[in-house]
Amino acid sequence: MIIIMNMNATDSDVDAVVTRVDKLGLRTHLSRGEERTIIGVIGDERQLDKGAISRMHGVDRVVPVLRPFKLASRDFHPEDSKIAINGHEFGSEKVIVMAGPCSVESMEQVLETAYAVKEAGAHMLRGGAFKPRTSPYSFQGMGEEGLKILAKAREATGLYVVTEVMAPDQVDLICEYADMLQIGTRNMQNYALLNAVGKTNKPVLLKRGMMSTIEELLMSAEYIMSNGNHKVVLCERGIRTFEKYTRNTLDINAVPVLKELTHLPVVVDPSHATGKWTLVKAASKAAVAAGADGLIIEVHPNPAEAVSDGEQSLKPHRFAELMTEVRAVAQAVGRTI
Amino acid sequence: MIIIMNMNATDSDVDAVVTRVDKLGLRTHLSRGEERTIIGVIGDERQLDKGAISRMHGVDRVVPVLRPFKLASRDFHPEDSKIAINGHEFGSEKVIVMAGPCSVESMEQVLETAYAVKEAGAHMLRGGAFKPRTSPYSFQGMGEEGLKILAKAREATGLYVVTEVMAPDQVDLICEYADMLQIGTRNMQNYALLNAVGKTNKPVLLKRGMMSTIEELLMSAEYIMSNGNHKVVLCERGIRTFEKYTRNTLDINAVPVLKELTHLPVVVDPSHATGKWTLVKAASKAAVAAGADGLIIEVHPNPAEAVSDGEQSLKPHRFAELMTEVRAVAQAVGRTI
Amino acid sequence: MIIIMNMNATDSDVDAVVTRVDKLGLRTHLSRGEERTIIGVIGDERQLDKGAISRMHGVDRVVPVLRPFKLASRDFHPEDSKIAINGHEFGSEKVIVMAGPCSVESMEQVLETAYAVKEAGAHMLRGGAFKPRTSPYSFQGMGEEGLKILAKAREATGLYVVTEVMAPDQVDLICEYADMLQIGTRNMQNYALLNAVGKTNKPVLLKRGMMSTIEELLMSAEYIMSNGNHKVVLCERGIRTFEKYTRNTLDINAVPVLKELTHLPVVVDPSHATGKWTLVKAASKAAVAAGADGLIIEVHPNPAEAVSDGEQSLKPHRFAELMTEVRAVAQAVGRTI
Amino acid sequence: MIIIMNMNATDSDVDAVVTRVDKLGLRTHLSRGEERTIIGVIGDERQLDKGAISRMHGVDRVVPVLRPFKLASRDFHPEDSKIAINGHEFGSEKVIVMAGPCSVESMEQVLETAYAVKEAGAHMLRGGAFKPRTSPYSFQGMGEEGLKILAKAREATGLYVVTEVMAPDQVDLICEYADMLQIGTRNMQNYALLNAVGKTNKPVLLKRGMMSTIEELLMSAEYIMSNGNHKVVLCERGIRTFEKYTRNTLDINAVPVLKELTHLPVVVDPSHATGKWTLVKAASKAAVAAGADGLIIEVHPNPAEAVSDGEQSLKPHRFAELMTEVRAVAQAVGRTI
Repeated sequence: MIIIMNMNATDSDVDAVVTRVDKLGLRTHLSRGEERTIIGVIGDERQLDKGAISRMHGVDRVVPVLRPFKLASRDFHPEDSKIAINGHEFGSEKVIVMAGPCSVESMEQVLETAYAVKEAGAHMLRGGAFKPRTSPYSFQGMGEEGLKILAKAREATGLYVVTEVMAPDQVDLICEYADMLQIGTRNMQNYALLNAVGKTNKPVLLKRGMMSTIEELLMSAEYIMSNGNHKVVLCERGIRTFEKYTRNTLDINAVPVLKELTHLPVVVDPSHATGKWTLVKAASKAAVAAGADGLIIEVHPNPAEAVSDGEQSLKPHRFAELMTEVRAVAQAVGRTI
Repeated sequence: MIIIMNMNATDSDVDAVVTRVDKLGLRTHLSRGEERTIIGVIGDERQLDKGAISRMHGVDRVVPVLRPFKLASRDFHPEDSKIAINGHEFGSEKVIVMAGPCSVESMEQVLETAYAVKEAGAHMLRGGAFKPRTSPYSFQGMGEEGLKILAKAREATGLYVVTEVMAPDQVDLICEYADMLQIGTRNMQNYALLNAVGKTNKPVLLKRGMMSTIEELLMSAEYIMSNGNHKVVLCERGIRTFEKYTRNTLDINAVPVLKELTHLPVVVDPSHATGKWTLVKAASKAAVAAGADGLIIEVHPNPAEAVSDGEQSLKPHRFAELMTEVRAVAQAVGRTI
Repeated sequence: MIIIMNMNATDSDVDAVVTRVDKLGLRTHLSRGEERTIIGVIGDERQLDKGAISRMHGVDRVVPVLRPFKLASRDFHPEDSKIAINGHEFGSEKVIVMAGPCSVESMEQVLETAYAVKEAGAHMLRGGAFKPRTSPYSFQGMGEEGLKILAKAREATGLYVVTEVMAPDQVDLICEYADMLQIGTRNMQNYALLNAVGKTNKPVLLKRGMMSTIEELLMSAEYIMSNGNHKVVLCERGIRTFEKYTRNTLDINAVPVLKELTHLPVVVDPSHATGKWTLVKAASKAAVAAGADGLIIEVHPNPAEAVSDGEQSLKPHRFAELMTEVRAVAQAVGRTI
Repeated sequence: MIIIMNMNATDSDVDAVVTRVDKLGLRTHLSRGEERTIIGVIGDERQLDKGAISRMHGVDRVVPVLRPFKLASRDFHPEDSKIAINGHEFGSEKVIVMAGPCSVESMEQVLETAYAVKEAGAHMLRGGAFKPRTSPYSFQGMGEEGLKILAKAREATGLYVVTEVMAPDQVDLICEYADMLQIGTRNMQNYALLNAVGKTNKPVLLKRGMMSTIEELLMSAEYIMSNGNHKVVLCERGIRTFEKYTRNTLDINAVPVLKELTHLPVVVDPSHATGKWTLVKAASKAAVAAGADGLIIEVHPNPAEAVSDGEQSLKPHRFAELMTEVRAVAQAVGRTI
């Protein structure tokens, strides 16, 4: 941590800061410039409250030096983590594709979709049984009934299942049926939920909050990991910006940034990141070209009658087309699908 | 709902949309312009999935006409709602001031603060016992011990207590000690939690998500209200923007906008909305001048030693100064404190 | 400037950075932490390219220490600057109000508005003769004809005139007619234009770019001032955010922040910052309560027939009402109007 | 244009709106829903001021139906525009690569870079002689001397030159030396400049404003085109968001969106869109995978000594590596380089 003093900070201001840092068991290092004095803090700053120091007399700003995440950091774990589900490894050479409907609506809908996406080459089935909806008047998901449908589709097709968990008290139930737990964008900083999934041994698909920074995403991964569960797959799903032509803005930069900062696998959700089915193929190819370890894509046999996210869902034959084109891009960047 | 067709939509595209809307029990109204056909939908559109229609062939865009919130809407409840706690009414002529530390740290800290803010004219005590922190390594709050301290401070000073609830399974416990339940910014769309507080009869202070629109804030209020609890106070606490000089950007426009759209009281949190104690006074005066029904302000006897939010906490004598100046502004806009 | 090295930076990486900084005539100061080495740069960093240093091997980040603006900085000019026009001083105890139509449309329209705003207590007349419009098909302003109308309105009412200049080659012409030159939000970083107005001796109203930071606003003021013209008044006019209910988000925090950072006067444009006439009064009161030195407000005798910005323009009687209410707030914060 | 009335709008409110639209020579079409009345406007709405109508009594909102751009719209020009420079066609199967230093610093620097990027397969040379810098104290470019260096590099290498024009009075000078005129991000809405380049017959590289929507970018293209110059190439160069780990956020969605909305070629600037050289390769591959027609990339023989943008500039051998990898992606999506 570096403490930058004001231009008019007095010697006693500087002394007070030094004394306070000393008391916390850390050492300081002074550097007096022409206009300002800088105080370097030596030792583990992670538990220090930046705000409290900022508040001291004569302090202009406090700049953290160390990254606040450790378990998720590539600094302490240089090689890529690999997380296997049913023989498919996130973080390996293979790009893992999860596909399926936004909401589970019926056995027929899920089965039809599951067979179709498997045929096209998808590795896992996605589908929501508990749905976070902006409006209390919208369809809230089929609940346990939906989980049973997903489990039957797994039996039928061999595709393992990822589905969203919205509250700590759903974790046990969902663990009975699902192979991977999804934390949705609105719950990325629901710490009770992060702690709860951190206590399971299921792989977790952690979606980035739509207005969360890359660092906050890694801190949320850190919550899960510090509970003992290191099987975290990060998901860039678009962020909220001023641009409203698309539902969200796919932060494609986040893919190579995350690959630099962390050893955890990184996947992209081109459906939510664009919000329009006509853009999903281009976004998928961009994600794989940028280095994503996987994709999660919404597919529905009849999007115009979907109870949610119809606008961004692909019909099965479009998904098959997408897979063909994405496969070519994957090969061009030395990956397989 | 208005459905705008593409320039090159065919008659059969239009027919398909009309047929689909008819099937849902709503009526349509066609308007053929020079370049485009417009289909008006007549009837309650609130449960229709906008996305699914957007997805139909020949459709360019779908524009909702009705506001998606009802219970929170001033359209259906023109007069201001008043929510009373200990004789102080949110939504009345009086501007209600809640003040206290970010985190409960000890009995002494809370008592000292509570006496000081009461002396300066505050109406309620704030303080966090369960703390949502970005880092799992930061102080997570004193938990039930903290709630007991708050309750004792209420006994000692007569100030009623508002404190944050972070998970559905904390609701019962916190209801035993607190007079008002706070939903924090990261939980504004934690629907399990909104449903849980909606089933209590405690007033709820609902903070706007740092990444949420005004409409989404009202939809979250609608979640609580649709569970039967209509005692919701909305809180503007700053939004996340590109400007990083301040911790957040106080969306002062939201105050008059909310007063237009809803009958619910609206308060402002100038501490989080600025993130710097030197800005809190100006932001407080602005909030009251803009029509806020209350303020929630962080005060700490020794901010430089606070375990959280020291940068934005006021010392008691600064808070007293703020109260004097805010009182003058309140009077200028026909309010009291 | 502080240079933070990577965890795995070698001694020769550190040496290379030190050598490079030395060569530029600045001194360095090393601090070796447990995890990382920090290099402090002593001397005037303002002309150093941060990016080039960041690019050196083993460098993690470069943190500037000094603020990049000097002439605009309160550090070097602690007392408030006062800028007088026609006896009204921006930056004094008096809150200066500029009012008038968005676009100059006709002599009648301008005169009617000018008399009305003067009657209500405005100190200056605003009105655009050259209009920056998003569409080439929209009304682009009356040009010199409009300037003449403004000048005649000044003659008739005694209200001095502020009007926008959009290009360097308009500066001379506009200086003939106007008393204050406005730089619009889209031109805040039009450096040729900033240099041109910096060479005049007319006061400049510099509007913040709708997605410019506070620091960038001050750097643009620095451009004008470094050309010799120190008569710069800064204007917060709303920034672009994800919230779309209002046209822009009034960054009310910017008012006290700017008062801390700079000695230049700060005014607020509540018309553009909200985009809706029903919100202008609340925003104006908030601005003055937060410490603004002035307001610039759109008024039109018949907003529903305005050629631009009708949605946010006030009718004259609403403006008079606003003035009465704003005056009360000004008094409450120790100002006059 | 669709006019949505308030729930409590009266018949005479509706009549007033209808009368006003009639007076403007457009027709209306009424649709009375259960809660609200909707007024459809038939005819060319592009010159109507949306704001003025919004302002009428009883009006809730006004929704434009037609897109505001015409010349740039694919609706009226379905096939891709192709813009040729020196035999390389933007908008064709070939992905055009422009590369070179941020600033022209010396003949040696430019020549060394030009030979290197040509060798690696670039089609054009980029380099700034007039530089828009946030600070007046930063290097402002070599001016005409820089243009001469660029022209000599063209002679030597055969690479045609794109360079930035910052003000209308530089247009003639730059046209003497350059083959393509670049409008920078800060000048995207500098209308005097757009009009000036619109009057030349040089191809224009129009960069998206860092704060501008896709629609605004197209409106700025419309400015240039409505002056007679249809040779406009659009450039996505990253937008400003809350995420600060990267300099900007590459809006990769904008590529397929623009390909839908317009016939103009679309290129991507991965250097500014990321701000870090380590991310440029991934962003370039993503851009081409998403359908970009070209790339503009900063290359410098010694980035750590660059006078600007050193952080994001590639060394020549890294650029060569990038070209190899991008070429593979281009082939995978059916393009050549």
